[in-house]
Amino acid sequence: MRLLLASQSPRRRQLLAELGYPIEYISLDVEETTPAGMAASEVAGYLSRLKASAYPAEQLAEDQVLVTADTVVVHQGHVLGKPHSREEALQMLRTLAGNSHEVYTGVCLRTRARETSFIECTHVHFAPLCEEELAYYVDTYRPFDKAGAYGIQEWIGMVGIRAIEGCYYNVVGLPVARLYSELKKLSKT
Amino acid sequence: MRLLLASQSPRRRQLLAELGYPIEYISLDVEETTPAGMAASEVAGYLSRLKASAYPAEQLAEDQVLVTADTVVVHQGHVLGKPHSREEALQMLRTLAGNSHEVYTGVCLRTRARETSFIECTHVHFAPLCEEELAYYVDTYRPFDKAGAYGIQEWIGMVGIRAIEGCYYNVVGLPVARLYSELKKLSKT
Repeated sequence: MRLLLASQSPRRRQLLAELGYPIEYISLDVEETTPAGMAASEVAGYLSRLKASAYPAEQLAEDQVLVTADTVVVHQGHVLGKPHSREEALQMLRTLAGNSHEVYTGVCLRTRARETSFIECTHVHFAPLCEEELAYYVDTYRPFDKAGAYGIQEWIGMVGIRAIEGCYYNVVGLPVARLYSELKKLSKT
Repeated sequence: MRLLLASQSPRRRQLLAELGYPIEYISLDVEETTPAGMAASEVAGYLSRLKASAYPAEQLAEDQVLVTADTVVVHQGHVLGKPHSREEALQMLRTLAGNSHEVYTGVCLRTRARETSFIECTHVHFAPLCEEELAYYVDTYRPFDKAGAYGIQEWIGMVGIRAIEGCYYNVVGLPVARLYSELKKLSKT
């Protein structure tokens, strides 16, 4: 079984590589829009399937599995995307600090014959952090490529995340254990 | 504030270094025995204080904080230590796979004038893994320096740990967020 990962995220590429399957990478140009009124908890799954549908299944080899994924941060029912500015990053982090939120990753697996997808949710509990700490993080780590403006594996995640419920790697960007289990199932069918 | 970490663990040294405080390292020679009948949940805290007591407080500088820590893996009330052989590592992993267990890290902070300690507990849920997967992990990663015979940050943690409840870095070996918060409190007193 060979994997074809459609993701630009270096974290996701690194996590998937740990599984030990041969991997190739592609980039898909998809307009990431969601239907009006879609529940925040559905967005990541929808976008992972949207990305998968942008790749023609007939271009997949017999032993190839296309992997697409999307991660969103949800706070009180609202999706936090990637911040476009320093101020927007700080605003997101002010919202998250001292509160709990959810991280959803949707993953879609597609072979020539089949498609399966799942959503993994992790609850994240952030400690209160002061303005100086938030500014230090944003200016040092520049989290403009990260949904919710933070990386759990970076300084702010280490000092600020007191507890999670669910899969840690899901928060990094890929629910590796669930994906491994789904790939094993797929290889047996 | 300067930290003096008494730990040989490269993971713990790396995690503590992320906090940004100046650090020195020492090695303390302590016989890690616990009183008969001590509850498994108390062991890590007890050992962290035992380690701290092996260093004379008067040798600490005014601005220095001695940090000692101990991590234990507990399955159904029994402490799993570091495995002494390949077979013992496999036996531990057979016990953990498909089950839940707890990881306790005890941390003791000591200045010339004060001592404070705490225990952090994380629940870990392992997926079922087959004998070939366990053998692959033990032979490739040789987890003989790890309590419970696994590292959550290694292959087996990525593919096998479906969910945790609590602090991720606590399972790696140091509850960084709690420690950061306790050090902030200490610096204000």
